[in-house]
Amino acid sequence: MNGLPLKDTPQAIPDPVTTLMALAGGDMVRVETLLNGRMASPVELIPELAAWLVKAGGKRIRPLITIASARMVGYEGEGHLALAGAVELIHTATLLHDDVVDESALRRGKASANHIWGNPQSVLVGDFLFAQAFMLMVDSGSLDALHVLSRAAAIIAEGEVRQLAMVGNVDTSRQSYMDVIDAKTAALFAAAAQVSPILAERPKAEQDALYTYGRELGLAFQLVDDALDYGGLAALLGKNTGDDFREGKITLPVTIALESASDDERGFWQRTLGGKDQKTGDLDAAIAILKGHDALDATLTQARAHAANAQSALSVFERNEWTEALSALAEFVVDRAY
Amino acid sequence: MNGLPLKDTPQAIPDPVTTLMALAGGDMVRVETLLNGRMASPVELIPELAAWLVKAGGKRIRPLITIASARMVGYEGEGHLALAGAVELIHTATLLHDDVVDESALRRGKASANHIWGNPQSVLVGDFLFAQAFMLMVDSGSLDALHVLSRAAAIIAEGEVRQLAMVGNVDTSRQSYMDVIDAKTAALFAAAAQVSPILAERPKAEQDALYTYGRELGLAFQLVDDALDYGGLAALLGKNTGDDFREGKITLPVTIALESASDDERGFWQRTLGGKDQKTGDLDAAIAILKGHDALDATLTQARAHAANAQSALSVFERNEWTEALSALAEFVVDRAY
Repeated sequence: MNGLPLKDTPQAIPDPVTTLMALAGGDMVRVETLLNGRMASPVELIPELAAWLVKAGGKRIRPLITIASARMVGYEGEGHLALAGAVELIHTATLLHDDVVDESALRRGKASANHIWGNPQSVLVGDFLFAQAFMLMVDSGSLDALHVLSRAAAIIAEGEVRQLAMVGNVDTSRQSYMDVIDAKTAALFAAAAQVSPILAERPKAEQDALYTYGRELGLAFQLVDDALDYGGLAALLGKNTGDDFREGKITLPVTIALESASDDERGFWQRTLGGKDQKTGDLDAAIAILKGHDALDATLTQARAHAANAQSALSVFERNEWTEALSALAEFVVDRAY
Repeated sequence: MNGLPLKDTPQAIPDPVTTLMALAGGDMVRVETLLNGRMASPVELIPELAAWLVKAGGKRIRPLITIASARMVGYEGEGHLALAGAVELIHTATLLHDDVVDESALRRGKASANHIWGNPQSVLVGDFLFAQAFMLMVDSGSLDALHVLSRAAAIIAEGEVRQLAMVGNVDTSRQSYMDVIDAKTAALFAAAAQVSPILAERPKAEQDALYTYGRELGLAFQLVDDALDYGGLAALLGKNTGDDFREGKITLPVTIALESASDDERGFWQRTLGGKDQKTGDLDAAIAILKGHDALDATLTQARAHAANAQSALSVFERNEWTEALSALAEFVVDRAY
């Protein structure tokens, strides 16, 4: 792009993550430095795998939430940097172990770490990063924040065990699935937001509000991911599509479609997800069935409701640029699907 | 046994772990209660696998060291119970992940957890126990102890990655191997002992002394395990024998035997450990080669030296029943091999 962007044109409106990154950029650079420091080791594989992870890295949305929450409540120390880094390391360690658990060869269309380096390596480097996360938390100096994050780590593992038990089970209810994502996804978002007012020693009402913000945002985020795995509303099949289907995971869209499934459809899910017996064209067929039940639409409607809950939770705070940015972030999380 | 044991007869001398357990028994019962509480979860697999682990559980030697160290330095609070529990949970989580990493079907002659429940389950329950360990550490209220234990957890993972890279590598030097066990085994023993004077806010000299005690005891412990894996000096092949050999692990006895190996012997190790091409009688042949180089003897001599270092480290403390018990423990660790 040449020249200055025109004011008030759609191109000139940065997305909320960009806005948040602009506000939080200084802090985020320092978080990145902390992360790089924590991935150093004389054992070559560790920085090698870590560098690959950083390169493959996402939007750093979880640490961004910690930073923004800390700033929003007026925190002026440095402990939020360590906690933000810890949150990202827990997330990264979880991803490494997830790929081993799911026996994934691909994550988001790229070879997964366990596929490149091996399952044992992914397990151990995950453990290393998990331990480093706790070292960072100790650096924050807050035992209360440590409690919240270690509890979240335990809940994530519980959620993953639950999900493992329901792989391929076409009798999974909506509620069972929501319980799983509450644990495996929303718990870390909730902790990422909640640790900041804890660190800043803000009143319980603010801690609860940010817990709710994070949890609801996490639920919205996961449901949008679930819909995107089947192409989202546009049903655009891209490199990010079909991971859940291939792994036999029952996600919200599938539970919705199963509630009113014909015998044929039930048989289809039983074969493809229950038996993991899949052939060319099955993913397209799955998407057609989901659309026939408006299941992607219903999933996104529920995601929007959770995002709205996240926004409402911010009402206890005085409005400032950070509340605006966090509120916009909740919308952005859902807008990804359109 | 009927009647009172006779004084000064061999039968009347209890082994040091029994003595320590008698001294520390009250505390250890409370640690066990903490551990059971931490393994509770509404997700059935977790208490189920945990109960199995507890039943299969060892001597609780690591938490015993934490308890005894705390009592030796005169600690009178309750934080040592949580730290002792955390140490055991880190150890348990590490065992679960180790079996996945080593692809072990057996541990100490019994089916391993990953063989019964599956690798994904072992990875996730390990993560859960690891997170619970950190929750217990938070309960101790000591950020310094948290730092020491989270650092140990990172070092253990580094050690495991190193060992993974040297599986089947017959060019592994003694020193490389010692570096590995310093990390994967001795670091947790060292931390288990060191956290107690930290918690009790004892002088740095006492913290350093207990760090050294734990580290040297850990090295002795691992070397004895290595010798026992080939039957120890008695070369008694039991259910505990041959795990390392089957997994192609290079341990100290093997590095010693390789230093002066004939071409034939080198070829033998290259085939059996390097290529994991093993047939009936190979374990016996391996033991015969090790004995030909006095490698088990040399390994145990080195273990005895480390145990003596552990005992010397206790000299900074005033003698009491706890110093005696910890000193006897160091001897016992080596005596297992005879």
